[in-house]
Amino acid sequence: MREFIPPAARFIDLPAGFAMKRGGTLRGARIAYETFGRLNAARDNAVLVLTGLSPDAHAASHPADPTPGWWEGMVGPGNPIDTDLWHVICVNSLGSCKGSTGPASIDPGTGGAYGLDFPELSMEDIADTAAFVVRALGIDQLACVIGTSMGGMSSLSLLARHPELTRNHINLSGAVHSLPFSIAVRSLQREAIRSDPQWRQGRYDDDHYPRRGMLMARKLGMMTYRSAAEWETRFGRTRLSPERRKGQAPFGPEFEVESYLDFHAERFAQCFDPNSYLFLSRCMDEFDLGDSCGGDAHEALSRLGIQKALVMGTESDILFPVRQQLDIAEGLRSGGADVEFLPVDSPAGHDAFLVDIDRFGPPVAKFLATVL
Amino acid sequence: MREFIPPAARFIDLPAGFAMKRGGTLRGARIAYETFGRLNAARDNAVLVLTGLSPDAHAASHPADPTPGWWEGMVGPGNPIDTDLWHVICVNSLGSCKGSTGPASIDPGTGGAYGLDFPELSMEDIADTAAFVVRALGIDQLACVIGTSMGGMSSLSLLARHPELTRNHINLSGAVHSLPFSIAVRSLQREAIRSDPQWRQGRYDDDHYPRRGMLMARKLGMMTYRSAAEWETRFGRTRLSPERRKGQAPFGPEFEVESYLDFHAERFAQCFDPNSYLFLSRCMDEFDLGDSCGGDAHEALSRLGIQKALVMGTESDILFPVRQQLDIAEGLRSGGADVEFLPVDSPAGHDAFLVDIDRFGPPVAKFLATVL
Repeated sequence: MREFIPPAARFIDLPAGFAMKRGGTLRGARIAYETFGRLNAARDNAVLVLTGLSPDAHAASHPADPTPGWWEGMVGPGNPIDTDLWHVICVNSLGSCKGSTGPASIDPGTGGAYGLDFPELSMEDIADTAAFVVRALGIDQLACVIGTSMGGMSSLSLLARHPELTRNHINLSGAVHSLPFSIAVRSLQREAIRSDPQWRQGRYDDDHYPRRGMLMARKLGMMTYRSAAEWETRFGRTRLSPERRKGQAPFGPEFEVESYLDFHAERFAQCFDPNSYLFLSRCMDEFDLGDSCGGDAHEALSRLGIQKALVMGTESDILFPVRQQLDIAEGLRSGGADVEFLPVDSPAGHDAFLVDIDRFGPPVAKFLATVL
Repeated sequence: MREFIPPAARFIDLPAGFAMKRGGTLRGARIAYETFGRLNAARDNAVLVLTGLSPDAHAASHPADPTPGWWEGMVGPGNPIDTDLWHVICVNSLGSCKGSTGPASIDPGTGGAYGLDFPELSMEDIADTAAFVVRALGIDQLACVIGTSMGGMSSLSLLARHPELTRNHINLSGAVHSLPFSIAVRSLQREAIRSDPQWRQGRYDDDHYPRRGMLMARKLGMMTYRSAAEWETRFGRTRLSPERRKGQAPFGPEFEVESYLDFHAERFAQCFDPNSYLFLSRCMDEFDLGDSCGGDAHEALSRLGIQKALVMGTESDILFPVRQQLDIAEGLRSGGADVEFLPVDSPAGHDAFLVDIDRFGPPVAKFLATVL
């Protein structure tokens, strides 16, 4: 079990004995974050970014870490989330392996990694710890909370549990809860990891690592993150050259699309902790914003007390279908919020907010200008 | 390695030393089939049904085997493919494990099962052996060839290679070739089987069987066969009762949709040979009707010499998207065929032709009435 901590990550220690929503406490836990741009004297230009399942807090390059971040084109000087104007805080989720305490972190009670002994993780824990970071940085109110994918869930949870923290919200490809197709996808991803004999009930090490399970889990993810139409344009039915197929095992890759999946899944498997993946993945299945309102997510949205929101998604997203973003917009509107709902015609599927900055950037910039 | 042969299957022996398209020959090979309804004296009421990857030749119940078939509501007396009128021949694909010779069959050269020594399978081999069965049954011309899913591919191949065999065609949720998303799905299904240590390079037995790999492969299939919308209606976010979760492994099923997938995948894993799955799955990736026309599938369709065709698909199909059925219709039309293209609004995804007989049956019956 290993953590993968960006070099410029900073940390906020959680209170000793931090109580998790579903039981269990954490001792000596911390949350990793990075900031971009300067907090102004009035301390009113802070924007919080909550991420999807896998990203770290390094959203973009900055002097302390010039490597490109996961949202490089979106966050930065002159970019849609303009760090010449905004003080951007990106928080790594509790339970991750990118600096925040998670299953790959050392349990001070045992001196070994938590593994499956990590307490059950909930989206509410991720939201509460992110809110704790904001306050610990001396910020009473954010100008906006921005959440993407899983971060769209954790930000809705944060709005519900910490209503004083912001009045404005951008939700990109998020949802109030997971639908059965997404649950099935994630269940199968977890099964791929759990079925790998090297997983060993979560007690793997570098010499016994569930690499094949991780590869399959990631490939399945990629198949649902991108759209079929995009792959058709990119790969068509192009085959690998005979040289690239040489010496491969029976039924090994024969088409470009298979090789593409291999390459990217291999990269992922080398920098994400399998147990962390299991905990975060399950926590996405479990979350339901409606839980706080007797199961009525629409009612829960209407009670969030948001003033302004931008909600975006893409028609080609099969994991968080665009109808789920429409639901968010309608729920917020019914609570009196001024909401712009913008379905985007992008071929990039669920990943569009990451890769299609041309379509997602301008509306985000325009929205932020109205809350400046 | 095991075969799973329906009790009423009949067999046609292939010629000794049957040469496979991509090299290799089969000795003592046979094709399993079943027939439904009576061949008339003019021998002109025969309809050939070519199946998807997994079904056997038992399309429907009949006196010799009263168990329901895989297309029970479609084939039978008074059903859309009315066996009071038609003599229906359903052929089990070469390479399957349901009676036709495949990787689980005995190689007379060694006395053991072929396993991975089975010659590379192509859709053209499946088409040629089906045509051989038809002729061996004394039928010179079919009234219609009906293909579903993979059978939509093998029937197009049959039309191209045996143009004298029929003038009418029904293609349900078929395609001229696989798109990269479908290739990726099947590649990952094969990877799940190949990654299972019990697969042992295809040399498993009943005591060492790649069950977990088969479960994952099937679940991934089911996720692409049905549509997300259907699951939302059927399962929503319903959880398993605490009793049903008792004693399960960490990260085991928690939602109804997970349990549903478990149940059906387990059933499949117990009645399909893993190596057979690998060969048939790869052969679907490889097939391209355009190969016979320098890669131009549209041109290949226009040359099929078909008189009448019905082409159907569903908007909710993500594995064989409906645009692929439109392509088939347009290609056949450009060759002068009288083609009805009927996209169906069914929530049942790729499986709609199997389960949504209400929508698929009437157009099929109507089309067949015009070729009687």
